[in-house]
Amino acid sequence: MIIPGFKFSGISAGIKKSKRRDIALIFSETEAATAGLFTTNKVKAAPVNLDIVRITSGKGVAIIINSGNANACTGERGRKNAIEMVETTAGELGISPELVYVASTGIIGQPLPMQKLRKAIPNAVKKLSYGSIKDAAAAIMTTDTFPKIFSKQINIGAKTGTIAGIAKGAGMIYPDMATMLSFIVTDISIEPQALKLALREAARRSFNSLTVDGDMSTNDTVIMMANGMLKNSVITKYSPLFNKVKHALTEVTYNLSKMIAMDGEGATKLIEVIVKGAKTEANAEKVAKAVANSILVKTAIYGKDANWGRIMAAIGYSGVDIHEDKINIYLNNLKLVNKGIGTNKDMAAKNIFSEREITITIDLGLGSKEAKVLTCDLTEEYIKINASYRT
Amino acid sequence: MIIPGFKFSGISAGIKKSKRRDIALIFSETEAATAGLFTTNKVKAAPVNLDIVRITSGKGVAIIINSGNANACTGERGRKNAIEMVETTAGELGISPELVYVASTGIIGQPLPMQKLRKAIPNAVKKLSYGSIKDAAAAIMTTDTFPKIFSKQINIGAKTGTIAGIAKGAGMIYPDMATMLSFIVTDISIEPQALKLALREAARRSFNSLTVDGDMSTNDTVIMMANGMLKNSVITKYSPLFNKVKHALTEVTYNLSKMIAMDGEGATKLIEVIVKGAKTEANAEKVAKAVANSILVKTAIYGKDANWGRIMAAIGYSGVDIHEDKINIYLNNLKLVNKGIGTNKDMAAKNIFSEREITITIDLGLGSKEAKVLTCDLTEEYIKINASYRT
Repeated sequence: MIIPGFKFSGISAGIKKSKRRDIALIFSETEAATAGLFTTNKVKAAPVNLDIVRITSGKGVAIIINSGNANACTGERGRKNAIEMVETTAGELGISPELVYVASTGIIGQPLPMQKLRKAIPNAVKKLSYGSIKDAAAAIMTTDTFPKIFSKQINIGAKTGTIAGIAKGAGMIYPDMATMLSFIVTDISIEPQALKLALREAARRSFNSLTVDGDMSTNDTVIMMANGMLKNSVITKYSPLFNKVKHALTEVTYNLSKMIAMDGEGATKLIEVIVKGAKTEANAEKVAKAVANSILVKTAIYGKDANWGRIMAAIGYSGVDIHEDKINIYLNNLKLVNKGIGTNKDMAAKNIFSEREITITIDLGLGSKEAKVLTCDLTEEYIKINASYRT
Repeated sequence: MIIPGFKFSGISAGIKKSKRRDIALIFSETEAATAGLFTTNKVKAAPVNLDIVRITSGKGVAIIINSGNANACTGERGRKNAIEMVETTAGELGISPELVYVASTGIIGQPLPMQKLRKAIPNAVKKLSYGSIKDAAAAIMTTDTFPKIFSKQINIGAKTGTIAGIAKGAGMIYPDMATMLSFIVTDISIEPQALKLALREAARRSFNSLTVDGDMSTNDTVIMMANGMLKNSVITKYSPLFNKVKHALTEVTYNLSKMIAMDGEGATKLIEVIVKGAKTEANAEKVAKAVANSILVKTAIYGKDANWGRIMAAIGYSGVDIHEDKINIYLNNLKLVNKGIGTNKDMAAKNIFSEREITITIDLGLGSKEAKVLTCDLTEEYIKINASYRT
């Protein structure tokens, strides 16, 4: 896959013990409109703090990312190391450091192995090529089991633009922030302000509606660069084409989110929780998140058990004012609960659980608003991965 | 153990497939001052809805409890069944139904096996005896691995009063409500209003500071009866002895809470999370609960890994305004984090993890308020139990 004007690389710097790829570089041949979303955790990794300041310019050319080490809780030394990553990259590319973003993911609290990075970054620059987005996607993985890439082409007038994104997820994923690392590029020409707005709205319906374990990372970062190589007339938030671009972007981020949920640590199932019939969208979201975050619901699904009582309990403690006797619950199209009472379809439900993707639909019967949240089941494998992540 | 004027029984009605005890009865020979705390879940089990109305009288004589079936999400039929449990018990005891409380715990959404209960309740009444508190404690268990009983004697003037409690916990435990089933009895004479106040304050520092899996049950109930058999002059909230009784009661509820955390489904470790140096007690509590509920922290402890980065991340997303560079974290007395940065004591930490009880102390360095939360680690065994609870 080629996105005009963008080059990628993904190499091994030896940060990961496994010697897998752990440095990714994304480079735009021309200055790109750039927008970003960052973790709302009060404990922010050094690279996040750097990017947050830089991105107010709305401009960018390169993103340097390492996996295997989060450069979080590393104090002044961490800040200096993040700056050095940026400056080394800028130096090798021959551009201003102000145009370079940085992201890190992996273990918290360990200093970055700067000697390895100093050697590796020039190599990452040398390896840049148009066709290497897969290498970059592989290089940002931590406990992910597969690289996550999604792209979408859209017609902009007579031209065809491309939006392509990569992401990494696995653990420590929680809604209401940029939930993991994702980097998105497009050749469409769009104003920085419009780009930011489109990215924020796309994230709200995708990355921010995604939960794996309810933990929120110190490093979550989404950065998008639009380099304008398509040479369409620049899109603003008032352009007729703005919504089209926003919807295409949402398709990219939603599909990346699905891949992240599907690849949740130890997960065997992708679960879409849809809440309908709420009085407000915020209420629908609260209920959906309570259900999606319930580890009792997640373990029941892993156990292929349509234990709808646990779903009812999660709805009940969501903080939303509900009426038990108005609630209907469906597993795919099978009605499990009618007006708050079980329909005794447990055996039919067993069959549905053999599928890899399932949908839980909750109708609160109180209004017309809805929300959708993505999650996965919780398995022994999750515990194993996280009980031994550092060893 | 004898608590003057109280009789107990615990028998098998055959609700549990295992044929273990599943009906408990607690009976006071005289009318007792009675207070209760109930789940704040909007989806409340039928017995909870019944008790909430009844307990406004401040009076009680008996509590009938079944395990194996929660009688929750059972609609009108569930309500009638709860009433029948109460009326059958009252009839057998020859007292007014208004003086009988009822609690259920177990699977949600299944009708109670009333035929079994109709047969069993008279038997439970026949088996009542002063010395059978252990049988009652066993009969309220679900996935608990041991019965939970704690008692405390205190001097009330020249007399010695007793406070004794039983509890069941295991899964679906979350702070900020009466977190599980617990029944407490005392022979001390105390006014209903004072009893309610003491119980609420004791619960706040024990049951409501306890989390196993972050899920909140539909059935959580704490009921306390004080029958006055000690014949001390009745204690009011203005009595000099009120605080003494409250502290003794807190000791009982805190120790029951510790047993519940220790016996969290699949748990191998009891974890006390203490947050100090907060600006407000509410802030300290928020941080403590975020850390205690983090499944990444809980799995790290299970893995005997002092992964303090996960603790920092949980502090950061607790919603409290913190300063990363003021935070100190201790594992028992070992300093893991100094001013936001790791102290590289990972090997020394390994030894501490061989203990069955550990304390994580977080000093936010911002003020003088503190809070304490009890929890346990999260293991593959928890997943196994909950993926197959109904099968």
